[in-house]
Amino acid sequence: MSNHVQITSTFSQTEQAQIIKNRRHGLSMLIGHVPVLIQAGYAPARNYRANTYPLRVSSHFLYFCGLSIEGATCLIYQNQSYLILPDLDKNDDLWHGPSISHKEIYERCLVDRILTNSEQSSLLQSLHISESSLVLVPFISDKHPHTNDVKKAIVQIRLRHDAFSQHELKRAARISTQAHRLAMQSTRTSQNEADIFATLEYVFAQAHGQSAYQSIVTTQGEVLHQRQHTQPLKPGSLLLVDAGAETDTGYASDVTRTWPVSGHFSSAQKDIYQIVLNAQEKAIKNAKPGMRYRDLHIQTCLSLTQGLVDLNILKGHPDNLVEQGVHALFFPHGLGHLLGLDVHDMEDLGDIAGYAPEYQRSNQFGLAYLRLDRILEKDMALTIEPGLYFIPRLLEHPELKSLAQTYVNFNQLAHFKEIRGIRIEDDLIIQEQAPEVLTKDIPKTIQDIQDLLNTKH
Amino acid sequence: MSNHVQITSTFSQTEQAQIIKNRRHGLSMLIGHVPVLIQAGYAPARNYRANTYPLRVSSHFLYFCGLSIEGATCLIYQNQSYLILPDLDKNDDLWHGPSISHKEIYERCLVDRILTNSEQSSLLQSLHISESSLVLVPFISDKHPHTNDVKKAIVQIRLRHDAFSQHELKRAARISTQAHRLAMQSTRTSQNEADIFATLEYVFAQAHGQSAYQSIVTTQGEVLHQRQHTQPLKPGSLLLVDAGAETDTGYASDVTRTWPVSGHFSSAQKDIYQIVLNAQEKAIKNAKPGMRYRDLHIQTCLSLTQGLVDLNILKGHPDNLVEQGVHALFFPHGLGHLLGLDVHDMEDLGDIAGYAPEYQRSNQFGLAYLRLDRILEKDMALTIEPGLYFIPRLLEHPELKSLAQTYVNFNQLAHFKEIRGIRIEDDLIIQEQAPEVLTKDIPKTIQDIQDLLNTKH
Repeated sequence: MSNHVQITSTFSQTEQAQIIKNRRHGLSMLIGHVPVLIQAGYAPARNYRANTYPLRVSSHFLYFCGLSIEGATCLIYQNQSYLILPDLDKNDDLWHGPSISHKEIYERCLVDRILTNSEQSSLLQSLHISESSLVLVPFISDKHPHTNDVKKAIVQIRLRHDAFSQHELKRAARISTQAHRLAMQSTRTSQNEADIFATLEYVFAQAHGQSAYQSIVTTQGEVLHQRQHTQPLKPGSLLLVDAGAETDTGYASDVTRTWPVSGHFSSAQKDIYQIVLNAQEKAIKNAKPGMRYRDLHIQTCLSLTQGLVDLNILKGHPDNLVEQGVHALFFPHGLGHLLGLDVHDMEDLGDIAGYAPEYQRSNQFGLAYLRLDRILEKDMALTIEPGLYFIPRLLEHPELKSLAQTYVNFNQLAHFKEIRGIRIEDDLIIQEQAPEVLTKDIPKTIQDIQDLLNTKH
Repeated sequence: MSNHVQITSTFSQTEQAQIIKNRRHGLSMLIGHVPVLIQAGYAPARNYRANTYPLRVSSHFLYFCGLSIEGATCLIYQNQSYLILPDLDKNDDLWHGPSISHKEIYERCLVDRILTNSEQSSLLQSLHISESSLVLVPFISDKHPHTNDVKKAIVQIRLRHDAFSQHELKRAARISTQAHRLAMQSTRTSQNEADIFATLEYVFAQAHGQSAYQSIVTTQGEVLHQRQHTQPLKPGSLLLVDAGAETDTGYASDVTRTWPVSGHFSSAQKDIYQIVLNAQEKAIKNAKPGMRYRDLHIQTCLSLTQGLVDLNILKGHPDNLVEQGVHALFFPHGLGHLLGLDVHDMEDLGDIAGYAPEYQRSNQFGLAYLRLDRILEKDMALTIEPGLYFIPRLLEHPELKSLAQTYVNFNQLAHFKEIRGIRIEDDLIIQEQAPEVLTKDIPKTIQDIQDLLNTKH
C-alpha cells in the first residue's frame, strides 16, 4: 500500500468560478427568456433511505454551478442566476458538520443571488415566472415546448471543452493512468480478477476520486459489459480492463487495456492485438477537425477487417465485408463516444448530443451502437476504442448467421477463439494538428505492456 | 498490495436453498391468503441510464430468494412461490453474457415455478389474483389494507437470524476485521484520510464484497456522518473509522474503531477512550436474552456520564444527569441498531422493525435517535456503539444550552475538546450465556491498538 497518488486540481478557484459564470452566461444568450431550473438531485437510497449511494449531483448542475450540494437548484433567467439551497433540518450540522457558507458558494460560482428553498416561490413570483413555465434540467418530461431548445443550447455549450474542463479531463486521465499501471504491475502477483478490481478502486479512492463507471475487469473479454470480476487469473488468459477515474469535480476518464495474465502475449494473441492496436492508432491519427466521426468508425472497421482477412479468418474484400456489416461479427460496438462530466457525455440528452442534427443512427447491426456522429471540432473530447471479440453466440445471431456462414473461415477461427476479447481505448481532446491523447502514458504496445508486467514493484 | 483476503462463503448451496425455501414457507404461514410480490428492483442511474450505480437488489428479495437478478420479482401466495424473471432484450447476452439458467435458479432457491415477466398477467389470472390485491414489497404505499400485516410478518421472520444469515454475518465481520486491521497497520505510512479510505475499499473489493454503507474515515470525529475523507493525517489527531463490509450475498457488518494517527494515545485521549471502552464492554456483557435494549442504552449513558463526572467535565449525579438528558451533549446518538442484510436491518419498514409494538420512540434529544427498543432474544444481530464527542455547536443547541450552562465544567472541558470524537462499535449475535462478538479480532484496547499501529507490515 505504498503507492501514493496525490493528484488534486491545481486550477485556481477564481479562474474556475469565472469560467463557470461564463458557462451560465453562454446558456443565457442561447435560451433568451426561457426560465431554466437546473437541479443537483439527490443520492438514491440503497434499500432504505438512511443508506444512500454516494452522492453524484447531475452533470448539468456540476457544469453550470461547479458545486456538489444535494437538493440545490439553480434558476437561470434573463442572464441572472439564482442558486437555491435546500432547507436544512435544524440538527443537520450536528450530523453533517457546518454547511458551506454563502460566501464560499459565491466565490466558487459567482451566482447573482443565493437563497433557500422556502424563498423559491416568492422569487418566482417576483420574476413573474409560473412553475409550469420552468424548464427542468435534468429533463424529466419532453412535453415542455422549450425542452428541445434548452437541450440544444446545453449541447452547444458543453460540446467543446473550456480550459477548466480540459484541465480536469487531464487530471481524470492521470488518475486512470496510475490505476492501470499499478493494475498491470500487480497482475503477476494477483490470483483473481477481484484483486485487480480492488487495486483500481484503491488508486481512484486515494486520489479523492472514484470510478466513473462500473469497471470491467475480466478474463471473459467477449462479454462486453461483464460486471462480475470473481474469476481466477489463469496464465494463458488475456485480462481486459475497462476502468476510468472520475475526479472529485466530477470529470470522467474511460480507458481500456488488454494484457496477458502470464506477462507474455502468445503468438495468436499478438496477431489479434496488433490488428486492434494498428486500427486504434490510425483512428487517433485521423481524429482531426473536419473529420466525421462515423467515417473514423468505418475506417476502423476496414482496418480491423483487413487484419482478419490477412489472418484468413474472414474471406473476401474488406470494402465489401464492411458494407455488409460482416465486421460486426467481431467488432459489434461503436468506435467511441463523447467524454466530459459524463463518461458518455450528455447521453441523458439522447442523440441530440452524440449526433449532429443532419445525421441519423443507422439500423445496421453494429453501426446502430455508434454513440457519436459529428464533424470533429477543436476542443471536443472523445474516446477511440476499437476491439475484436470472439463471441460464440454472435456468430449464431439471427441477423448475422448467414453472413457468418458465407464469410467466416471457421477452421481458421478455431485457432483464435480462446482470445475472447481485446479492446484498446484512449481518451483524447481534438486539436488542430493532432489530438492530445490524455491516456498516452498507459503502456499500449506489446513490448511496453510486457515490460511493465514483468517489472517488480 | 500483497495482503490477500480471499473469503468466500463455505455454506453449502443445497443447505442455503433449503433455508431460503423455509423462509418463504414461514412467511406464507403468517400472511395466509394475501398475495405478496417481492421485487428485486433496479440499479439506479448515475446521471444517465446507461451508467448505473452497482446493482443492489432489495434486501427482502435477497432474503426470500437469495438471488441478485435485476428486475426479478417473486410472488408468494398460498404457500407457493413463483419467480418472475424480466423479459430480456434480444441482444442482452451479447452485452452481459449468458443469463443464469432456470435450472441454476431453481437449485439456488427451490421456487415452485419460474416464469418470465410477459407471463405474469396470465399467472395472476390463473390464480384469480387482481393486480390491486398484490402487496408490493418493498412497500411503496401504506394504503393497502394488508401492508402492516405483511410488514409484521417479515419482521417476525427476519428478526432472529437463521444458520445461513449467521454464517454470512460472520463472514462480513471477518472481511471488516481484515480491513480495519490493515487500515491500522497502514496509518503511520499514510498521509491522508483518503489513503485509509482507499485501503478499506481495497480489502472489501478483494473479498468480492463492497462497503455496506459509505465509510466514515475522519479526523473530525465530532461530525457524526462525515462523508468527506480528504484531510491530511496530523500526528496529534485521532482517526475515527466507521466502515463495514457487505458480502457478495448482501449481508452487512458495521464496525467503528478510533485510533491515534501517531501510533500513541495522548493522556487526555486515553482518559476519554477508556470511558467509552468500559461502557461498550459493559453493554456487550449485558446484551443477553431478556434484556431490554433501551435499558442497555440508558446503562451506557450512565457509564459514560459517570466517566465524565469522574473527569470533572460534568457536575452532578449521573442518575440525575442522564434523566435530564445531559449525557446527550456528548453522546447524542443511540447505542446501536439491528444488523442483517441491511446495516440498519429492515429500517425500510420503519419502527415496526426496530421497536417492539409496546414501545414508542422518545422525544427527548438523544433518546429520540435510538433505533432499537426490543427485549433481546437469542439469534438477534445488533451493534453496540457508544461514543463521546466534543461538538461545539451541540453545547449551543437551543434545546440543550441551559443544561450545558448548568452542568458542564467548561474550564475542564477545554482540556479535552481537541479529542473531537471517539466511537467504538462491534457487531454481535445474541446467545444464551454471552453474545457472540463477530468483530472481536479488531484491536480495541489501548494496548492492542498501539501494538498493531506500531507493527511494521
